[in-house]
Amino acid sequence: MPPERFLIRQDKLLSLIREAEVDALLVTGVSNVRYLTGFSGDSSALLIGPSVRVLISDSRYQTQIVEECPGLEADIRTQKTKPHDQLAAVIAKARPGKLAIESHILTVHELGKVKEAIEKTDAGKTIEIKPLAETVEKLRQIKDDEEVAETRLAIRIAERAFVAMKATLTGELTERQVAHELEHTMRRLGADRSAFEPIVAVGDRSALPHYRSGDRRIGESTFLLVDWGAALPSGYRSDLTRVLATDTVPGQLQELHGVVLKAQLAGIAAIHPGAKLKDVDSAARRVIEEAGYGDFFGHGLGHGIGLHIHEEPRMNSVAEGELQPGNIVTVEPGIYLPDFGGVRIEDDVLVTSDGHEVLSSLPKDLE
Amino acid sequence: MPPERFLIRQDKLLSLIREAEVDALLVTGVSNVRYLTGFSGDSSALLIGPSVRVLISDSRYQTQIVEECPGLEADIRTQKTKPHDQLAAVIAKARPGKLAIESHILTVHELGKVKEAIEKTDAGKTIEIKPLAETVEKLRQIKDDEEVAETRLAIRIAERAFVAMKATLTGELTERQVAHELEHTMRRLGADRSAFEPIVAVGDRSALPHYRSGDRRIGESTFLLVDWGAALPSGYRSDLTRVLATDTVPGQLQELHGVVLKAQLAGIAAIHPGAKLKDVDSAARRVIEEAGYGDFFGHGLGHGIGLHIHEEPRMNSVAEGELQPGNIVTVEPGIYLPDFGGVRIEDDVLVTSDGHEVLSSLPKDLE
Repeated sequence: MPPERFLIRQDKLLSLIREAEVDALLVTGVSNVRYLTGFSGDSSALLIGPSVRVLISDSRYQTQIVEECPGLEADIRTQKTKPHDQLAAVIAKARPGKLAIESHILTVHELGKVKEAIEKTDAGKTIEIKPLAETVEKLRQIKDDEEVAETRLAIRIAERAFVAMKATLTGELTERQVAHELEHTMRRLGADRSAFEPIVAVGDRSALPHYRSGDRRIGESTFLLVDWGAALPSGYRSDLTRVLATDTVPGQLQELHGVVLKAQLAGIAAIHPGAKLKDVDSAARRVIEEAGYGDFFGHGLGHGIGLHIHEEPRMNSVAEGELQPGNIVTVEPGIYLPDFGGVRIEDDVLVTSDGHEVLSSLPKDLE
Repeated sequence: MPPERFLIRQDKLLSLIREAEVDALLVTGVSNVRYLTGFSGDSSALLIGPSVRVLISDSRYQTQIVEECPGLEADIRTQKTKPHDQLAAVIAKARPGKLAIESHILTVHELGKVKEAIEKTDAGKTIEIKPLAETVEKLRQIKDDEEVAETRLAIRIAERAFVAMKATLTGELTERQVAHELEHTMRRLGADRSAFEPIVAVGDRSALPHYRSGDRRIGESTFLLVDWGAALPSGYRSDLTRVLATDTVPGQLQELHGVVLKAQLAGIAAIHPGAKLKDVDSAARRVIEEAGYGDFFGHGLGHGIGLHIHEEPRMNSVAEGELQPGNIVTVEPGIYLPDFGGVRIEDDVLVTSDGHEVLSSLPKDLE
């Protein structure tokens, strides 16, 4: 990606920094640093404000920073300097009167170390530290064209792997083997890894929304739920769910599937810029409630995806805020009947300037 | 694992809690909760002290907790309660005068939320919160018999996968493909996943200690460095490194290999209970310095492995403390010549009651 993209993001962040009435933000979240600079390593920080932009890293990453972040000032630590002393020295040199830290990422212990190190510098007494949560994350909600393209690719790879998996599915395979096959195929198609540990849940296990794939064999029931996605080398992700019938399924499962599908389509139809997050949730939830299954849909309708698998915005019954163009969200209603089974159908949807585009395209029928 | 194992760990922790002069510790680290209770889910906490032991979780995990933690009291949250209010209610009920939190794990933001919620309870004013870092981690350094057995298995699986990879290595494969093959094979052999992203570094890329496997093909050089390991479903891990010659290698690489091997054997020989961490490091480092490559070994000699890939104890030139029976550490000296290549040789070593046992057994010659 060209540096301009990162300069635009950095400039947008400066507006938020000014709004928060601080002079600089110490960005320590790995994905936030990556989003703002293109640097794909870890253990590094970005000090950014109207009068300072420095990437703070160590000698392991010197070459990588030159390649990935042309034009960005970098402070490189050698083995002899302690990380907190390096941070403090860079901060002391910039002398922000008010310094914000990412309070949702920095641990209590790390903040103590940083404060201690800053107090030992000659600028120590003049710097006030302010906690600030979820600031870069506000920007990350709105995807630019390249981020949308990467997400499309992550979806395409996940879908192709799913088709390949279905084509070779046998009753002897265990849930875990199917999960591993999915990841293996996604990697062959260019993914870096699974976007999260895939859920492959046979029969009644599908009623557990956070089940981990286990040793149950596909042939032990007549259906399975698969929740999977791809993460690309760039960090962008997809997140999809389908229920597959491997034999004639119980009539009630077919009924659940019909209700969930109708709910999902109602949720998707409610997506447009300016739609309230809770209204999109309730558009889908209402369908499930009217069918009498309201008590069995115990999670929110969906969430943003991007460099992380769960990002803002989150669509649930208590969410505040509205959808904006550039959001990419999952739409994933479900009904879970304990000891019987569950159905969830999940697609990834882009909020466009005048409505929405469903980015994923796998068939949704039980088959 | 039987509950007795966890009760023993919990009792050892109580001694540390008393030493820290607090009435309870709120354990929020996922691996720490798992180590103390056997619970393998996330988003949960353990409140533990002389007069309280409660696992704090939510309804998704209700069944799993009953299966994994028989006999352990659990407080289960439903969708209607906010996580911080649940934590506060459990803490208020136990009324610890002094409550320690894991300051190296809890974020500044989370601590603020927890404090706020506690202050709203009727016990709010009576509870003093104290930061405490790396307490359960002290116990995790010393592996019990079952942990040693799991680590042996993680090593065995990694070694078998390496042998299989070597047997099928071709010049056309990329670094990334080799890394994925290793993980795929380890999974077939019973691993849950790679213990970390494997490093497969062809030619001069081996001089970058934190290189990520890329698109370079094996045939583009005459040697490659592989740093890989397995993570089991139980969470325990292995961590190994070998350099493979795929053709006739430069004489200097052979020389580096000889020096590193000698350094590694010297480091291993220095391992026994009571050995100072920095002395083990210097036993290996001296060999590299005497060969004139001291400036090209820029990291510590090794680290503990367990539920995390990097644990205490760490062996480097500034480490304080001594080895203890039950430590499992990597021994991994390296020499890295920029633009030429690097050699690192890494094995996993158990500190026994009277010396050490090298748990890994792959040949170390360049081949």
